Amino acid sequence: MKESGMLDLLHALQETLAEEIPITRHIGVRVQSYDGERLILQAPLEQNINHKGTAFAGSLNALATLAGWGQLWLILKEQNIRAKIVIQDSSSNYLFPVTGDFTAICYKPDAYEIVRMQQTLRKRGKARIELFTEIYDNHVIAVSFKGRYVVLVHE
Amino acid sequence: MKESGMLDLLHALQETLAEEIPITRHIGVRVQSYDGERLILQAPLEQNINHKGTAFAGSLNALATLAGWGQLWLILKEQNIRAKIVIQDSSSNYLFPVTGDFTAICYKPDAYEIVRMQQTLRKRGKARIELFTEIYDNHVIAVSFKGRYVVLVHE
Repeated sequence: MKESGMLDLLHALQETLAEEIPITRHIGVRVQSYDGERLILQAPLEQNINHKGTAFAGSLNALATLAGWGQLWLILKEQNIRAKIVIQDSSSNYLFPVTGDFTAICYKPDAYEIVRMQQTLRKRGKARIELFTEIYDNHVIAVSFKGRYVVLVHE
Repeated sequence: MKESGMLDLLHALQETLAEEIPITRHIGVRVQSYDGERLILQAPLEQNINHKGTAFAGSLNALATLAGWGQLWLILKEQNIRAKIVIQDSSSNYLFPVTGDFTAICYKPDAYEIVRMQQTLRKRGKARIELFTEIYDNHVIAVSFKGRYVVLVHE
């Protein structure tokens, strides 16, 4: 994909999040970049701070959930598939407290997993896929997150 | 505990959440009740809605995380233990979409688990405990949540 096309897509993702999930504006979610493999979202500590001066776990989980959702949204856009994405289950490990603005990096699944998802979508109109996200605070992995998402093709 | 003492404690929990974790005001978290066993928190759909007209998974997880945190906060208050509570890991199962205002119910752990936590706290100044929370939407369990929390005695 051309760089300008990629930037348009990131702007569209940013607008989609802000318009469709209004609480993301309070969390201060910002789509930072996507290199075709890693989608990076950011949020400021200030809006998500707790009494210990670190980020609230609920905000960290929300950013990770959105990074997975956004990664899938981009994969589907790239492949021109119109589908609904919902999360089925997730687990979060809070390894270290987050003491500053934070970054969620969601990794693109293996090509094999994406092909399997496409095939299942074509056959059944519905498929599941697992995505991994890490939240970084100053180059340290502070949260590791695994989310299983369901993709449903629009009828 | 007397009913008035319990109400004071619930007001203190409500204030603690609103003051110490400001994002909970945007989520609209309200401490509803505590019967000595079940702590109930509420949040409105309106502030947590997504494009599908249902509650954003990140908000559901946040309310569940806070319900577990609040249950532990109450247990420690009842036992007059001053300690810091942080979440270590959690898992959420999103069973059904949440289509209205929602309620998180966190169950008090077994008495045995609480005694074990107290003993470990006395011995090591630090203990772990698992808490279970369910989110209801109109009498249906829409989310089941398990959180492992760490309690650290203040020095």
